[in-house]
Amino acid sequence: MSFQPAHISEVQTPALVIDGAIARQNIATMAASIPGTRLRPHMKATKCTALAREQVRAGHTTFTCATPREVVGMIKAGVGNDLLLANESVDAIRLQEMAALQDSALITVAIDSDETLHAAHVAGIQHVLIDVNVGLPRCGIAPELAGQLADKARARGKTVRGVMGYEGHLMMVAENSERLAKVESCMALLRAAAHDVGGDIISAGGTGTYNLHSNTGVTEIQAGSYSLMDTQYAQLGLPFAQAVFVFGTVISSNAQWAVVDVGLKSLGMDHGNPSIDGHAVWFCSDEHTTFSPNEGAPPKVGTRIRVTPAHIDPTVAQHEAAWVVSGDDIVDRWAIDLRGW
Amino acid sequence: MSFQPAHISEVQTPALVIDGAIARQNIATMAASIPGTRLRPHMKATKCTALAREQVRAGHTTFTCATPREVVGMIKAGVGNDLLLANESVDAIRLQEMAALQDSALITVAIDSDETLHAAHVAGIQHVLIDVNVGLPRCGIAPELAGQLADKARARGKTVRGVMGYEGHLMMVAENSERLAKVESCMALLRAAAHDVGGDIISAGGTGTYNLHSNTGVTEIQAGSYSLMDTQYAQLGLPFAQAVFVFGTVISSNAQWAVVDVGLKSLGMDHGNPSIDGHAVWFCSDEHTTFSPNEGAPPKVGTRIRVTPAHIDPTVAQHEAAWVVSGDDIVDRWAIDLRGW
Repeated sequence: MSFQPAHISEVQTPALVIDGAIARQNIATMAASIPGTRLRPHMKATKCTALAREQVRAGHTTFTCATPREVVGMIKAGVGNDLLLANESVDAIRLQEMAALQDSALITVAIDSDETLHAAHVAGIQHVLIDVNVGLPRCGIAPELAGQLADKARARGKTVRGVMGYEGHLMMVAENSERLAKVESCMALLRAAAHDVGGDIISAGGTGTYNLHSNTGVTEIQAGSYSLMDTQYAQLGLPFAQAVFVFGTVISSNAQWAVVDVGLKSLGMDHGNPSIDGHAVWFCSDEHTTFSPNEGAPPKVGTRIRVTPAHIDPTVAQHEAAWVVSGDDIVDRWAIDLRGW
Repeated sequence: MSFQPAHISEVQTPALVIDGAIARQNIATMAASIPGTRLRPHMKATKCTALAREQVRAGHTTFTCATPREVVGMIKAGVGNDLLLANESVDAIRLQEMAALQDSALITVAIDSDETLHAAHVAGIQHVLIDVNVGLPRCGIAPELAGQLADKARARGKTVRGVMGYEGHLMMVAENSERLAKVESCMALLRAAAHDVGGDIISAGGTGTYNLHSNTGVTEIQAGSYSLMDTQYAQLGLPFAQAVFVFGTVISSNAQWAVVDVGLKSLGMDHGNPSIDGHAVWFCSDEHTTFSPNEGAPPKVGTRIRVTPAHIDPTVAQHEAAWVVSGDDIVDRWAIDLRGW
């Protein structure tokens, strides 16, 4: 696309729009609370090296990635010096691509089984982290087996940097004290595993629990969504503001409802419908969202509408780029350059 | 990606995989039922000019598009000679891009308001179709106002090709006779509007209702999903088989569950979780699906798994390309080249 808009009214829609000042404020708020390498920002939420550069400016130098493409893309963009693939892989080609970049940055790959250790070893990956299951039924070895896997890794010459354990099932526990207590129970499992594994790193947490780890023994937090936020995390009353929207244009309107050109292909839908301030969202279609105002008449055709996604991660991943605004002026274009796998 | 797999076991995952023989059989089945220009295949479901070429081979030459990028991409690929943008747009730049291609193919744009007529006119679009609301609360003018809009269009020199009305709210009515009766009610509205509008085209329908229009007066059907299918449409007992999967690799496994590397960013989630034959899907995360077998032990790390999406349209749109298989051999790579807007 060669057209470069100068004002938000000129943006072609649907468009991912980031309020740069709000995103930077979110990043500054987090950096004040979890500074430097205490935070390992997660790239899966934003998939954008330009945004990661803002996190580097705020003092973070270590990053979490969910896919090999994120790791490789960060290194090729020269962002970060310590990249953790916080996910398992047995893809020989992609592991080799990462291994070939080990002179450019410290690359660490999570393992949770003999097979993932073997794949990392064969590919020539030097640094590994033991992924420990702390309650979320997903990846991670049982805590009591973590030490054995670390021993096997060391026996094959690997450097074992420590453990990670993602308490993802607790991110949306609504009541703060309950969330804190449950996080502590999970982290007791992770500390026990860390004792058996050794190494310097105990990595855990996310945007929903970033501030509940003061006494958990965790050395670093993997939060990512905090920089842009979404309507689900907004329910937790966190000190981060909504910095991203999908900007749309009303393309049809009548006395009862209007339709904006933001749909299933520009929104992550696993957390449900998006929101539109002052309006009720009826439903989303491939390229449309039907909605009606809480008061008054529906907006006319051509009206620009901010649609707020329910889940930021899969929303961002559907866009080629985000327009960065300062007020209503377009000040930058950030490629979502870490999409894919 | 330079790596070109020859066998499905070599495909890097997650990967969109199309069984070419099944897709061609679906296309042949539809072409036998709704031949030639009686079907105007919808590109929003597949966003793939290579697949559209198969539809051309089956005798279809007219296509339905949801976005200007689909229209422009089809023309630049030389596929189809009559492209309908079955959606409203007030984007001057994109309308002009389409207008500039009117010598290469017949381009028709749906309008449902004075504003969308005006935008099409200013951009130099010659052919329009009146989009009529037949019950789905989305785009489309009220049936009784369709004739007036057609008159306004003709007064501005437009060629009004007829009407369209999408009964999308009826696609998943489970009971056949009920679906037929409701389709007939909607199409009575569309026929009345067509009488007022004039022109040759009465366009409607989708994969869920393609075979219910024998007596509705509709001149063409806009089905798209039939070529690849998904688990939601499969509930209707249509004569089309599942031709597309998201192929994944088990990356973590234990006695209770396994995790495959297919998640929210490779699946459309608005129709709910995907399916895995012989297994129960527990939940999807950004890059993972957790599942367990109905019988026996979970599959081991490294096992390849076929994940069947619940909704094809937003699933396909998340992938850069699809691998086409014949049995377990990779025989082609089809770019999903019409993504975006």
